[in-house]
Amino acid sequence: MQTNTTPNITMKYTQTDFYIGLGLAVSSTIFIGTSFIIKKVALIRLNHIGSVRAGFGGFGYLKEWIWWLGFLMMGVGELANFAAYAFAPASLVTPLGALSVLVSAVLASKYLNEKLNLLGKIGCLLCILGSTVIVIHSPKEEEVESLKDLLEKIKDSAFLMYILFVLICSLLIALYFGPKYGSQNVVVYIIMCSAIGSLTVMSCKGLGLALKETITGRSDDFQNWLTYVFFITVIICIFIQMNYLNKALDLFNTSIVTPVYYVFFTTLVIIASAILFKEWLTLSVEDILGNICGFLTVIIAIFLLHAFKDMDISLSDLRGILNPKHEKLWRNGRNENYESLLSRSI
Amino acid sequence: MQTNTTPNITMKYTQTDFYIGLGLAVSSTIFIGTSFIIKKVALIRLNHIGSVRAGFGGFGYLKEWIWWLGFLMMGVGELANFAAYAFAPASLVTPLGALSVLVSAVLASKYLNEKLNLLGKIGCLLCILGSTVIVIHSPKEEEVESLKDLLEKIKDSAFLMYILFVLICSLLIALYFGPKYGSQNVVVYIIMCSAIGSLTVMSCKGLGLALKETITGRSDDFQNWLTYVFFITVIICIFIQMNYLNKALDLFNTSIVTPVYYVFFTTLVIIASAILFKEWLTLSVEDILGNICGFLTVIIAIFLLHAFKDMDISLSDLRGILNPKHEKLWRNGRNENYESLLSRSI
Repeated sequence: MQTNTTPNITMKYTQTDFYIGLGLAVSSTIFIGTSFIIKKVALIRLNHIGSVRAGFGGFGYLKEWIWWLGFLMMGVGELANFAAYAFAPASLVTPLGALSVLVSAVLASKYLNEKLNLLGKIGCLLCILGSTVIVIHSPKEEEVESLKDLLEKIKDSAFLMYILFVLICSLLIALYFGPKYGSQNVVVYIIMCSAIGSLTVMSCKGLGLALKETITGRSDDFQNWLTYVFFITVIICIFIQMNYLNKALDLFNTSIVTPVYYVFFTTLVIIASAILFKEWLTLSVEDILGNICGFLTVIIAIFLLHAFKDMDISLSDLRGILNPKHEKLWRNGRNENYESLLSRSI
Repeated sequence: MQTNTTPNITMKYTQTDFYIGLGLAVSSTIFIGTSFIIKKVALIRLNHIGSVRAGFGGFGYLKEWIWWLGFLMMGVGELANFAAYAFAPASLVTPLGALSVLVSAVLASKYLNEKLNLLGKIGCLLCILGSTVIVIHSPKEEEVESLKDLLEKIKDSAFLMYILFVLICSLLIALYFGPKYGSQNVVVYIIMCSAIGSLTVMSCKGLGLALKETITGRSDDFQNWLTYVFFITVIICIFIQMNYLNKALDLFNTSIVTPVYYVFFTTLVIIASAILFKEWLTLSVEDILGNICGFLTVIIAIFLLHAFKDMDISLSDLRGILNPKHEKLWRNGRNENYESLLSRSI
């Protein structure tokens, strides 16, 4: 990683900030991942008691303290996530979101008896490996000055084009493609959620910056109209995003929505962040390559965790190939195997 | 990566050398991977003609020109591999050997109609991703001086201890553990092959260095007794290694021998190289972490490529989860799915 050597007095993400952001991002995924499991425990308990299930319009879960605990953890997680964006680049924080999938998969197998098969376990390991590679190669510094300067960056024609592009896409999907193809193809609503989501993240960064500046006493950004624009944008964007994500979840399995959403959301956040902050310009070719490898590894990991969920694959199924083969081989007449062995040993 | 800033006149692996070594290592895996397939084509053709099969002691394959072509490609590949060790660190060249597994899997699915299932394809992609991460983080420079100085490094007590350790292990396996457990557990003979193999690689590096020095006219190492020691060591080690690898292949499936051999061989070469050249001392914590992530990713890739070979998994099997779910879900009564969906969307 190269550091900008020209002297500047701008507020930069320092190494310390980077590690604070990293810590916040990782702990937010732990809170969010755990909250899924706690909420599910609450729903299962309610189910045993025999109240009307949430799926049928019941609201009994609101009386269950465990459900509220899950809700609280979710809130803490989202706050930590929000704070992480103020400290570290979005292209680090967003991809790490994958770890919450890992946390909930591991906890579900431990506390909910949802069996994690061999491919799921491999997926978990890959998720950690890919995330580590992303952390190693992510941009460590990013120039973010005052809110005024952020406005300058936003006014950059490329980012305005991006916002326009997102708005047109969203309108087209909401009015035309959604009603027509939304129930047939899983990506339709997810593209919309992700595009709007990338604007949410950028507004969160602005809001986080305002909070950080105010708290550290650099300036009182609560006098600044821009802070309120960010705040309102975040509220509106989250509302649209949640609405269409629920639509997608209602129409398709979580197993397919989660990985597809991860891919589109992360990709669009990285693109938006790259256009706005140009953080990638300071990265070497190796770091960009490393980021891509890490990101692809995490996508594969999430795919393995989800797509083969219902398959019954364990190491014991593979014991066959661990055993000496001679008798078995000739009995089954699987001579091709022996042939391939020969072609390698000759 | 840090560069050694103390002035020295030693022969160092420069950036150019690194890329030459990388190119040689990658092309060697292409040659070796292709040679497996060509040899197999020859064996299949012979099978159709009806001559006595190699498995039954036939030598008909020696009359087949295609078999010789495969043999030639294997030779070229091994030479390129040998040359690669002279230019780049062993901890880069050896892990890249995994790419030959990838090449032969892709070619087998294209020309031998051996179907590559979905997990195999994922394995191929992961193999490339992991290898890329290894290349990014591998030591780019390594101090290697004259043969005399290599002798000094070898005389280092740590490396002598390593050689002693390998020899004792090999003797124990050859005389006691092999005959007793070799046919029950796949790792017994493979550990021996890998341990001896790590000495082969180190001797190859010495021999490559001698050749390189002589060709570039730096000194005439063919007058040096050490060159011959390396040469004889290489011959003896390859002989032992091949003998025990064939034993392992004869007792167990290629599908299990290949990944296990890759893991042990690569690990031991990296350890031997680290002890002898101390190339890891110049690496940052991030590079070491990156190397470990890349290496583990490649191990998972090879496992996916081999362990699920006989399973019939394709994207079309997973189409189910891509479809809208409502009717299907309630018909099957798989309410848990709906519940997990709810717990996430609430």
